[in-house]
Amino acid sequence: MSCIFCDIITRKIPAEILYENECALSILDINPIHYGHALIIPKRHHRDFLEVGTDELSGIMQAVHTVSHALVKAFKLEGFNFFANNGAVAGQSVFHFHIHVTPRYHNDNIRFVLHLKRYEMKAMEETAAIIRSAITDLSMPLMRSHT
Amino acid sequence: MSCIFCDIITRKIPAEILYENECALSILDINPIHYGHALIIPKRHHRDFLEVGTDELSGIMQAVHTVSHALVKAFKLEGFNFFANNGAVAGQSVFHFHIHVTPRYHNDNIRFVLHLKRYEMKAMEETAAIIRSAITDLSMPLMRSHT
Repeated sequence: MSCIFCDIITRKIPAEILYENECALSILDINPIHYGHALIIPKRHHRDFLEVGTDELSGIMQAVHTVSHALVKAFKLEGFNFFANNGAVAGQSVFHFHIHVTPRYHNDNIRFVLHLKRYEMKAMEETAAIIRSAITDLSMPLMRSHT
Repeated sequence: MSCIFCDIITRKIPAEILYENECALSILDINPIHYGHALIIPKRHHRDFLEVGTDELSGIMQAVHTVSHALVKAFKLEGFNFFANNGAVAGQSVFHFHIHVTPRYHNDNIRFVLHLKRYEMKAMEETAAIIRSAITDLSMPLMRSHT
């Protein structure tokens, strides 16, 4: 199945390439939040962050780190965000995992619209217990895969 | 200077701890976007992502990866975001670098309000050239530090 980011990685489709290492490619987003809005794309095709290999995390984040430093330096930024949308409900539109890095400015009118929740009595404890239990479950197949 | 996240890491202040590895601690955000909204906090105090050491990137992201897998499993998520705010203009409120991981749901009314920019003629090429040049400049002191 065709994937626009795979085609950019193999240079079938042109893009403004900013940076490349063994794991990832960085390009300009063609629909930027601000000029300089960059994407960091793993070279291996993964639908989302869950599919990324643990061996790729360091290389991908090293690219995010380098591009963040460069954006701050190039545009004398006071701030920036990085973010990743995983799944259509989270705003993902290209289903090849990628991380956005975007410059931010005073009064740029960008905001997150959301309503912060309050944990009801005991709900925070219970929520944490459910997640810790899921983490324990995760570690079993992971440990088995090392044997 | 006192830092609430440093105090959580040293257990001076309680928190719902989800996960810990050599580089990072994960806790529940007490003001969640959705129940399960987690933070991943490097153990070393860094104001923002730029200050994080390249040797910490892998451990920090391994924690983000583990917590993401656990949230998806625990709450049967169809999507999630992870993001980091660097600088007050980018929405940072605790000045010890951290990454948010938050569940997302259909029709959860969370949205980013922004106005996507269009690159004027040649502006995309010029923007990319400026960033590539900043990356080249960055690599010089980095290379020197290895000698």
